[in-house]
Amino acid sequence: MYNGERKRISDAVVKRLPKYYKCLVNLAQENVERTSSQELSRLLGFTASQIRQDFSNFGEFGQQGYGYNVEQLSKAIAKILGLNTVHKMIIIGAGNLGQALANYVNFDVHGFKTMAIFDVNPKLIGLKIREVPILDIDKMKDFIDENDIEIAVITVPQDRAAEVAQILSETNISGIWNFAPTELNVPDHIIVENVHLTESLFTLSYRINEVKISKMNTF
Amino acid sequence: MYNGERKRISDAVVKRLPKYYKCLVNLAQENVERTSSQELSRLLGFTASQIRQDFSNFGEFGQQGYGYNVEQLSKAIAKILGLNTVHKMIIIGAGNLGQALANYVNFDVHGFKTMAIFDVNPKLIGLKIREVPILDIDKMKDFIDENDIEIAVITVPQDRAAEVAQILSETNISGIWNFAPTELNVPDHIIVENVHLTESLFTLSYRINEVKISKMNTF
Repeated sequence: MYNGERKRISDAVVKRLPKYYKCLVNLAQENVERTSSQELSRLLGFTASQIRQDFSNFGEFGQQGYGYNVEQLSKAIAKILGLNTVHKMIIIGAGNLGQALANYVNFDVHGFKTMAIFDVNPKLIGLKIREVPILDIDKMKDFIDENDIEIAVITVPQDRAAEVAQILSETNISGIWNFAPTELNVPDHIIVENVHLTESLFTLSYRINEVKISKMNTF
Repeated sequence: MYNGERKRISDAVVKRLPKYYKCLVNLAQENVERTSSQELSRLLGFTASQIRQDFSNFGEFGQQGYGYNVEQLSKAIAKILGLNTVHKMIIIGAGNLGQALANYVNFDVHGFKTMAIFDVNPKLIGLKIREVPILDIDKMKDFIDENDIEIAVITVPQDRAAEVAQILSETNISGIWNFAPTELNVPDHIIVENVHLTESLFTLSYRINEVKISKMNTF
């Protein structure tokens, strides 16, 4: 089992972990007790050997010929993903996207607790979204220190993202979840996960275009 | 150069294309005329050989020893991504996320034109967001047919996504950009690109946890 020591795992493997976790949680909800790399392969579309290799990065989960205990494996992956503790978050930017994320109950369920939302707009400051207060961005730095905030979610416009990142750089924040379409310049000890919406839309556009072209070539 | 014929390209390559494109657009804005796989490697973090191999999927872009013409390469990749035409979109769900996407001007810039937003809430129907009307979801199917809509963006809650996907399945829509945290069941001719926000947050959580553990092991 997972023993707390770990080599650096590639991004490709890390990106698959949440998919494994989600799939195992679904299986557990359907009262499935055991699963196999073959079944997971069928459900997720990765090859069975890929799945076994991914799991082997984190220790021995399964028993040859017996497969995996769904509950144990899902708990182990939750622990690897850091989902066994509460992560205190703030959201910076109380616009539509910030409000959408603040309203997203799924984050709460998994231990990501939004403690405050920060904005510059005096019309929004003082309001609450699902019990979460919208505060003046001038108070952000102190708030982070006093409340041991671990994750900052940036949903401000592109041209404000750099100054927000600058303020965050001077805090003990561990990670930034960045929705602004720009690369942030922060110290190495702050982990940044970017959500590039435009890139996702372009990927869709590519796939649509690919189908169009293959149709043109057929006729 | 790209000749309209194409083999099926792996998802990993496709996911890198928008990054190449964005990087090349930035270089063009800085009036850089020529670039190389080495420079792109430095800017993007992929290896130079990876970059050359990715480009080779789409034909011959560069000239050995001369590098790439930034403008030509960026136009070629734009064409590969299908960004050289207008893509008519609708957004389904006029909640915070739907409104955030409707307000996102970057999509317009790249030819993704939101024609309407659909919702079930009578309080929202009839309003406009940046000139885009919010319409009754009962009118969606006819609207798609009459306006040759290519892409549907799903931002409805998880429990409404299946019925929306069912309606879309009966139309000539080409692609779905899905923000609902659920797998959609649609015919093969409809391309689905999922934005899994929770998975992105879990990835951040993993990386933060990884740093924590490595610190614990150091002391």
